[in-house]
Amino acid sequence: MKAGDLLPRTICDIPMLLFRDKDGHATAIKDACSHRLAPLSAGVYQDGEVMCRYHGLRFGKGGKCVHNPHGQITDALSVRSWATVERHDLIWLWMGDIKAADDSLIPDLSFIDRTPAHGKFTGYLPTKANFELCTDNILDLTHTDYLHPDTLGGGGLTRAKEKVKVEGNIVTVRWENPNEVAPPALDRELDRPGSLANTFTEVVWYPPAVMKLCVHVEPVDPLNGSPVESVTMHIMTPEGAMKTHYFVLSTRNFRTDDPGYNEALGKFVNNIFATEDKPMLEAQQARMGTGDLWACNPALLPIDNAAVRARRILAHMIEKENNGEAA
Amino acid sequence: MKAGDLLPRTICDIPMLLFRDKDGHATAIKDACSHRLAPLSAGVYQDGEVMCRYHGLRFGKGGKCVHNPHGQITDALSVRSWATVERHDLIWLWMGDIKAADDSLIPDLSFIDRTPAHGKFTGYLPTKANFELCTDNILDLTHTDYLHPDTLGGGGLTRAKEKVKVEGNIVTVRWENPNEVAPPALDRELDRPGSLANTFTEVVWYPPAVMKLCVHVEPVDPLNGSPVESVTMHIMTPEGAMKTHYFVLSTRNFRTDDPGYNEALGKFVNNIFATEDKPMLEAQQARMGTGDLWACNPALLPIDNAAVRARRILAHMIEKENNGEAA
Amino acid sequence: MKAGDLLPRTICDIPMLLFRDKDGHATAIKDACSHRLAPLSAGVYQDGEVMCRYHGLRFGKGGKCVHNPHGQITDALSVRSWATVERHDLIWLWMGDIKAADDSLIPDLSFIDRTPAHGKFTGYLPTKANFELCTDNILDLTHTDYLHPDTLGGGGLTRAKEKVKVEGNIVTVRWENPNEVAPPALDRELDRPGSLANTFTEVVWYPPAVMKLCVHVEPVDPLNGSPVESVTMHIMTPEGAMKTHYFVLSTRNFRTDDPGYNEALGKFVNNIFATEDKPMLEAQQARMGTGDLWACNPALLPIDNAAVRARRILAHMIEKENNGEAA
Repeated sequence: MKAGDLLPRTICDIPMLLFRDKDGHATAIKDACSHRLAPLSAGVYQDGEVMCRYHGLRFGKGGKCVHNPHGQITDALSVRSWATVERHDLIWLWMGDIKAADDSLIPDLSFIDRTPAHGKFTGYLPTKANFELCTDNILDLTHTDYLHPDTLGGGGLTRAKEKVKVEGNIVTVRWENPNEVAPPALDRELDRPGSLANTFTEVVWYPPAVMKLCVHVEPVDPLNGSPVESVTMHIMTPEGAMKTHYFVLSTRNFRTDDPGYNEALGKFVNNIFATEDKPMLEAQQARMGTGDLWACNPALLPIDNAAVRARRILAHMIEKENNGEAA
Repeated sequence: MKAGDLLPRTICDIPMLLFRDKDGHATAIKDACSHRLAPLSAGVYQDGEVMCRYHGLRFGKGGKCVHNPHGQITDALSVRSWATVERHDLIWLWMGDIKAADDSLIPDLSFIDRTPAHGKFTGYLPTKANFELCTDNILDLTHTDYLHPDTLGGGGLTRAKEKVKVEGNIVTVRWENPNEVAPPALDRELDRPGSLANTFTEVVWYPPAVMKLCVHVEPVDPLNGSPVESVTMHIMTPEGAMKTHYFVLSTRNFRTDDPGYNEALGKFVNNIFATEDKPMLEAQQARMGTGDLWACNPALLPIDNAAVRARRILAHMIEKENNGEAA
Repeated sequence: MKAGDLLPRTICDIPMLLFRDKDGHATAIKDACSHRLAPLSAGVYQDGEVMCRYHGLRFGKGGKCVHNPHGQITDALSVRSWATVERHDLIWLWMGDIKAADDSLIPDLSFIDRTPAHGKFTGYLPTKANFELCTDNILDLTHTDYLHPDTLGGGGLTRAKEKVKVEGNIVTVRWENPNEVAPPALDRELDRPGSLANTFTEVVWYPPAVMKLCVHVEPVDPLNGSPVESVTMHIMTPEGAMKTHYFVLSTRNFRTDDPGYNEALGKFVNNIFATEDKPMLEAQQARMGTGDLWACNPALLPIDNAAVRARRILAHMIEKENNGEAA
């Protein structure tokens, strides 16, 4: 989001407007004028403020009304705002009470900061499926063997069998493939493609829906070169009960100074998500209708272990919050 | 509507068909055959009657079944009709009991009749917003300063502050701009453009949603020419709770014999309504969802005064009608 | 449906998948994987089985899970299936308990089997209308005189007046036109077009929505040639409450060995259904909203006799079934 941009985005069914205030800080306010609900995103950006296009009211940082051409400025003219922090190339929103916002709850994604500009790419995929279906998709990566058999998968994860670990509210799922040729996308980046390697794939899930996916390939014989690794963040932000903003930010430890390669890789990977994952998630949601997963009586398998753990933790946190307890 | 036309139009969620009977009078009947609800607007017009395309029943004036190829004509075969009057270039419908229809309630819009053919133009804009939002838009013309800053507005109405007058069930709102250069659209029609003028802008609202909008510009120095004036009717006919047929008929006292100018002006003005007002009204409605304005807790301003008065009068009339009292 | 096809079809709001098993038999299973509801129709057909594209489970005949790459095969992994029989060029489904399936309830449509390949054509029309509206359309063929006046109709059926006969759960409606020139489509197939003929048109309805429509034209003078006849099956399979799969299979006793004529005739007839019947049925449904026909208070006519009988029989059968009695 550049200075001067008016970025509308609906989150948890609330239409929001994001823009940068005079100091360049990201501000998130309700995308509906306090006067008559005209969308402020259809307004005019002026020097860190936004003017409603309908009757000229102007709003600044924190949603405060800063100009009313038709009378006094009162508190009632302000619009709701949400706490924001910029960290790890992302704007983080606190959906609850602005005073309770606690940025220490943001997971450490500093691998993003440490990666040079041409060693990472982003993706954004609006998906007509519940955010937890999208999370499940990452927490069970055996799907890559069937949904992306010729690109991201190849049978390795199905063979490996997952190991799941829960620490506090964090779920880790890991697949180990020792002494095998690595999956093609990473094998070809080794000094000697085709040589045996020890590979692990690991997803760490942080509530509510932030995931760090690491694929690490280390040649068995150190003479065959140093390890290659990609670490990708997947974030599922609910737009509504059946719609998700799916954000991707992928880093790697190789070829990090080649803008052309970086762009081509980003296109390749985002195209897989857009043409294979997204249609599958949306078709799954369509079959489920408006009910949740449990209402559909799914026949769960061992591969669902991590996803089920994450769902339970989140359900528990929501229950506690609804009961007024600290999560 | 020409003789022979079958004009379907949904009003207050009722699908209606309008056509001219043998004598040329406008008839409004339900657009659904009494037999099996086939739309009569998909039928065939024949000499002041309409034949259902499904099984050949024919209906005339007042919805009476005039031909049944399959048996007797009975009263049950007639379809509902509504009282109509043609006046001021418009067809007026009485939505209630046909016997209670009272054409003395039609406001005097005889300025339309007095205007020569090339001194007036019409507009029709189906709008996905509640009819009262559309009415509010006309009763608070300060919006022209922000939504149409370079054409219809320019800041004058915001400066003027409105004066609101209520007489019986009629609301008048007026803005006065003495001793100023008139808004560009009318200033350029004066004998000496750019000269000082006394301008007033006045909207008279008649329930349920008929408005007469007059802009009158009189040069301060009579030597600078005679007054120019435009008078425009705005009618908001509900199609349903969230859809409005927005009708416009605009007259003026200058260049009333130039068909080319008239057509160009009509296109220009209708384009403003279609590309600026309509999207704003629809976006506002989308933000409001299916609830009414009050449920959205708007922070009203002095500029809403006339609109709120009109809403209250109408709510009161509806309440009285629902209680069986004369409005 | 060829071997290897995966044919998705929603019936009574249930998404189904049809395919041929190893022996070539048609199998109908739920089009949602037991594991996570991914549509199996987006899967991969392999040798009489279908593999889910999401996590690789495979399903065969009767919905049985035959392969699970992630663990044991359990009964819970099977998906629901429905009884099927292939007869008269059609796949028949039993929507209820698979053990209660009774193929003796399939009406005798052996005229289809007796017709050579180039003496019959098929049609399929997804229609946004309740299946009983579609049935009504065939049980009252006087509509052809108004909806298809220049092709299938011409006034004969309106003149003839229908005779309705009910035997058990079967309704027959018949129109007789003795000593008249036959309708153009069949008249031109006589040895001497334009000669007088005795024509009858008969529809036999079998519950729930199978119809056999016969038009039989016999020259009054046997010297003018032998009778020509077309027999057409119409089946209305509900996709949902307001959507119907409309299937047509039409046979005739003339020009049964001319593939070009057969194809042209099929296109001609299907085009009439698609451009005249379907829009009328959908417009009728749109006027009715989500309510049933009776809620709309239709003014029924003698021509509705057969349709009303069929509706009553079906309502009675459904009531009995809901009460646990044999239909």
